[in-house]
Amino acid sequence: MNTFGHIFRFTGFGESHGAAIGGVIDGMPAGVKIDLEAVQHELDRRKPGQSAVTTARKESDTVEILSGLMDGVTTGCPIGFIIRNENQHSSDYDQLRTAFRPSHADYTYTAKYGLRDHRGGGRSSARETATRVVAGAFARQALAHYGITIQAYTSQVGDVKVDADYTHLDLSLTETNAVRCPDAVKAGEMEQLILDVKREGDTIGGVVTCVIKGAPAGLGDPVAGRLGAQLAGAMMSINATKGFDYGMGFAGVNMRGSESIDLFRRDGTMPPHTLTNNSGGIQGGISNGEDIYFRVAFKPVATLIQDVPTIDVEGNPVTWKGRGRHDPCVVPRAVPVVEAMAAIVLLDVMLLDRAARI
Amino acid sequence: MNTFGHIFRFTGFGESHGAAIGGVIDGMPAGVKIDLEAVQHELDRRKPGQSAVTTARKESDTVEILSGLMDGVTTGCPIGFIIRNENQHSSDYDQLRTAFRPSHADYTYTAKYGLRDHRGGGRSSARETATRVVAGAFARQALAHYGITIQAYTSQVGDVKVDADYTHLDLSLTETNAVRCPDAVKAGEMEQLILDVKREGDTIGGVVTCVIKGAPAGLGDPVAGRLGAQLAGAMMSINATKGFDYGMGFAGVNMRGSESIDLFRRDGTMPPHTLTNNSGGIQGGISNGEDIYFRVAFKPVATLIQDVPTIDVEGNPVTWKGRGRHDPCVVPRAVPVVEAMAAIVLLDVMLLDRAARI
Amino acid sequence: MNTFGHIFRFTGFGESHGAAIGGVIDGMPAGVKIDLEAVQHELDRRKPGQSAVTTARKESDTVEILSGLMDGVTTGCPIGFIIRNENQHSSDYDQLRTAFRPSHADYTYTAKYGLRDHRGGGRSSARETATRVVAGAFARQALAHYGITIQAYTSQVGDVKVDADYTHLDLSLTETNAVRCPDAVKAGEMEQLILDVKREGDTIGGVVTCVIKGAPAGLGDPVAGRLGAQLAGAMMSINATKGFDYGMGFAGVNMRGSESIDLFRRDGTMPPHTLTNNSGGIQGGISNGEDIYFRVAFKPVATLIQDVPTIDVEGNPVTWKGRGRHDPCVVPRAVPVVEAMAAIVLLDVMLLDRAARI
Amino acid sequence: MNTFGHIFRFTGFGESHGAAIGGVIDGMPAGVKIDLEAVQHELDRRKPGQSAVTTARKESDTVEILSGLMDGVTTGCPIGFIIRNENQHSSDYDQLRTAFRPSHADYTYTAKYGLRDHRGGGRSSARETATRVVAGAFARQALAHYGITIQAYTSQVGDVKVDADYTHLDLSLTETNAVRCPDAVKAGEMEQLILDVKREGDTIGGVVTCVIKGAPAGLGDPVAGRLGAQLAGAMMSINATKGFDYGMGFAGVNMRGSESIDLFRRDGTMPPHTLTNNSGGIQGGISNGEDIYFRVAFKPVATLIQDVPTIDVEGNPVTWKGRGRHDPCVVPRAVPVVEAMAAIVLLDVMLLDRAARI
Repeated sequence: MNTFGHIFRFTGFGESHGAAIGGVIDGMPAGVKIDLEAVQHELDRRKPGQSAVTTARKESDTVEILSGLMDGVTTGCPIGFIIRNENQHSSDYDQLRTAFRPSHADYTYTAKYGLRDHRGGGRSSARETATRVVAGAFARQALAHYGITIQAYTSQVGDVKVDADYTHLDLSLTETNAVRCPDAVKAGEMEQLILDVKREGDTIGGVVTCVIKGAPAGLGDPVAGRLGAQLAGAMMSINATKGFDYGMGFAGVNMRGSESIDLFRRDGTMPPHTLTNNSGGIQGGISNGEDIYFRVAFKPVATLIQDVPTIDVEGNPVTWKGRGRHDPCVVPRAVPVVEAMAAIVLLDVMLLDRAARI
Repeated sequence: MNTFGHIFRFTGFGESHGAAIGGVIDGMPAGVKIDLEAVQHELDRRKPGQSAVTTARKESDTVEILSGLMDGVTTGCPIGFIIRNENQHSSDYDQLRTAFRPSHADYTYTAKYGLRDHRGGGRSSARETATRVVAGAFARQALAHYGITIQAYTSQVGDVKVDADYTHLDLSLTETNAVRCPDAVKAGEMEQLILDVKREGDTIGGVVTCVIKGAPAGLGDPVAGRLGAQLAGAMMSINATKGFDYGMGFAGVNMRGSESIDLFRRDGTMPPHTLTNNSGGIQGGISNGEDIYFRVAFKPVATLIQDVPTIDVEGNPVTWKGRGRHDPCVVPRAVPVVEAMAAIVLLDVMLLDRAARI
Repeated sequence: MNTFGHIFRFTGFGESHGAAIGGVIDGMPAGVKIDLEAVQHELDRRKPGQSAVTTARKESDTVEILSGLMDGVTTGCPIGFIIRNENQHSSDYDQLRTAFRPSHADYTYTAKYGLRDHRGGGRSSARETATRVVAGAFARQALAHYGITIQAYTSQVGDVKVDADYTHLDLSLTETNAVRCPDAVKAGEMEQLILDVKREGDTIGGVVTCVIKGAPAGLGDPVAGRLGAQLAGAMMSINATKGFDYGMGFAGVNMRGSESIDLFRRDGTMPPHTLTNNSGGIQGGISNGEDIYFRVAFKPVATLIQDVPTIDVEGNPVTWKGRGRHDPCVVPRAVPVVEAMAAIVLLDVMLLDRAARI
Repeated sequence: MNTFGHIFRFTGFGESHGAAIGGVIDGMPAGVKIDLEAVQHELDRRKPGQSAVTTARKESDTVEILSGLMDGVTTGCPIGFIIRNENQHSSDYDQLRTAFRPSHADYTYTAKYGLRDHRGGGRSSARETATRVVAGAFARQALAHYGITIQAYTSQVGDVKVDADYTHLDLSLTETNAVRCPDAVKAGEMEQLILDVKREGDTIGGVVTCVIKGAPAGLGDPVAGRLGAQLAGAMMSINATKGFDYGMGFAGVNMRGSESIDLFRRDGTMPPHTLTNNSGGIQGGISNGEDIYFRVAFKPVATLIQDVPTIDVEGNPVTWKGRGRHDPCVVPRAVPVVEAMAAIVLLDVMLLDRAARI
């Protein structure tokens, strides 16, 4: 299954070491003037080789739009696009014809399909997330018509954590450093930690926090389409994710109901707003007009630049000689992916909401 | 949207104060002998009024199966069922015709639909989860054919937390106490905490941990159908949930890749198994044959038995006089709901997996 | 698969000889005042035993609405409903435990599921179409808000055919006779033919023509969602159908393009209209604002009241002793089913269309 | 909506005058050795400029596969592909910036989207069917594993009709003439008719008959997933179609049940077969193991090489000066498209059927 969404739908394809990755954006509303440089800019935020804390692999990640636009405006027809793969070192992966790396998809894909594309992780490579970034960039431009903006940032790397909540941060600083953390001091610590880990041939995890502003009340759908459920599903489909929470999240477990409820401002203004936002902008599965915010936990990826004891496809012990060009911490490059997935979900629920009332 | 699943699909309906709740289970494989008492037993685990830590509301929650079985065996045709609502005190909710309770769905449903069923929370009531329990009970009986079992338990209430991980617990003790915690000492503390909170007219949150055993390697689908994403979406669709993580989860953020990778046992046996299970049984979005385990965070519900300052539908300040019969902590009754949703997802991916290979 | 539609969705359940049939209407827009008598009226048009040309089986077909309405108005939440089965003569079907009737679903269900509900055809019985009529009746009431009306009629039974096209008929006469044909003379001939066929214990086929008025231009979706494709799929899902065409249909094969194109009226009025309507109201898969009309062919059903040579489940020759209470011609009762399916499709495309533009 | 299928899914994109058309084939089972020349061969059967009876437009229609194969074998991952557009005469369409052609999608797309790509019909052009042919070619190679073959042919052009049913024809002769009719005499008449019509700048309709052999009993799904409904929806999504019937089809309306039922052979062999096949291989919505056959009616296309009175976007009378390179009869090139759509449906139901039983 490679399709996200219900009526705004994105279907992606492609492996890290094939000819190209790409996809089809279907259900894009007609009449949106598209800024293609802004689309490419999102890809540039995700692309490898952008700084010392990311992989050294080089890909220009240039998107080619093949359909669905006329004179730069969406026509309502599906938008096909491709991104050519460029910097392939397939021979880096020759050992993988026969070896299963620990905590990778090598064994699980083989178990599922009876075979796998061993080059660069095949479809399990995070490379495919570039196509989601393209779809998200289109969604984002439609959302801008409604005043909805989405901004994510790195809130934790290893044990370096931004203590302040997002309302006390200047999110416009996010892109001013390589780790994408709006707290400059923490950003420096995070960067140092990643470089240390990289030097050891090791990896480290982190957390991305995402904030959606401007969403009107009424988005999402009871029960199966709860907005929190849709965001959770979208985020947990990103490679290397292990957890998701929104609003008070896991921390809310320790709270009393009386502490955590979000009282309405009683100033007579309508639509109503709340004094606090422990709900994270979603109540009963539907947005309430406050900021929607959530956290996504990323594991330390399993691609070490070390020798690792493992097995081959027949169960024999072998040593995986980790090499190649990999991210010591995926979180900085995951920030635009989280935003893209959030945009895909938000546009879908915005469009679906139009059908809620006669 | 009230449908879960792709080819094993459950569509539910019903409000807490209508004539009945129910649903349609579609895609149930033919040829499964159904133990209807076991289905009712799952409902009994979820039903209100079962102990001092739950709401005092009484519902027999008797399921009536209307189709899809012959001589007690599934025919492959859809299984329709209803559960009559019985113990309705609609007048408890008269004030809600005009008031919005804080952190409820009162305002968000009104924003979405232009009106709402104010009686008992309408469709936003957790009462609808009873229908998911029925669907899950059918799924569970199909999964039993493959040796897959699902067991959840309460692992945290407020700050009372089971420290041991599930592999050190005797999960067969889960049903021996009212809070559904297999650690008897912690269970006692949890129960006491809930009773204290209840006495104050307040509520408290908690965590349910769920363990799936016997799932073969190969379940789940790359990218949009990643098993972790599907479980996350299913769990976060349950009322009052605020977070989800699996395997090492949020705690993995602090680990190094070299600590967290799950090395294969190198004993030559196939299919392979791992020495540790930080992955939580899922690698690259696909099950690897180890136990699948995850946690779901539940907030303290917003239904207080206190006076709460709020607003009415026109924005005027009013006082919500909390009353009625509510759960001070939803976690004990959420345990069978988590299991049911896990069963729905697992059967769906089991059936989908059959199409993966020629 | 028992779900129709994309965002207005109907999921049905039930066999002819179980406790009840029913379903869930999901995606019904909020704010529609429902006339429940009108819903029941549609069921009465479909119910058995209504005249000499239909089966003598008696079912009151009383619908019970279980959810989704408050004070008679749709809330946006799913509408669950059931219709109890009443007049079951299961013993009529005892021979079917072991025999396969020719041209029935007896063998094909067994091939698919490994077993079947032999009582009254189980899920393959046209009885399930009663649930579609309920869903269609709800859809129709939403469509009325937009001025869209749907009317079908019997245009052929055996070789008795209404020669005039619908624009020359007074469709308000459709319900004035038992066969539902607005041409009184042809209606008489059809009725006589059906009674003759019935006397012989035989059956006869026919054609239902359906006309949708008031649909605005712009409904339907290019390629997979073409309106003609959606109507074809919906109609061909009705029991006993063998063919579908719309506009000039099969007859258009013999025409030249120059004869068949629908020239625009050149009177300067906008939106434009056409001088002819060979297109049947759909061009390029999308409605053009003219009447949408189509035909559905129904075969003579295979349930004869005669002895028929056939085989049992082991392949041995046996004689099927046809008995029971069956329709000699399904067309008169299929008229409201065709209308219901048309309404389900139309409301779905109306709601989807709202997402087409920014 | 640009996606076909449930678990074998094809999503296409592209306009006739953009950079490329293409698509994503998702759910292709792993382990199928793909003959890429056979894929290209199917495209060659559909491509323009292949004979005197088709458009003179030249496109090499070369498919480029971008993902989903390793060493020529499907990996279970999505297959992305593109076909570059080459022979574009966009200036042929300049008048269409302001004119609506009769019986085209010019007005309906504008009504739906507020704008349209006027070049070559944009997405409404039959050019997109080339992408379906690619998807169908992959499906066909998977179906070959199960011994299922699909063959279509031209059975009627205007009033020239093949009288014999397909069982009396040698379908291996289909590709021996330009019109794709296995009856050589009729083929000659059809060809002459098309050339006559072409000379007049006019167009003519026709019928494609399709035969599926080797499908086992049990394919398709009751109610919404009836095989006849799925085939109808797929076929009626092809450009220029106006009708579909299967088995006895519209002609069955005149038959008695006693004439039309397909009696089982009573020779004791299992699985059972029938003496006749008026059912067209489908009973109760599910295949019965006999040949599946159906007919698709194509209208005379609306693109005339004549002057045609019409209106512009403001409703003013203008003359459409038909020119360009168009098919006088689409039927010969529609044959491989019908086959492709049949293959897409069949593979989907084959894979879905695996989930029918425990």
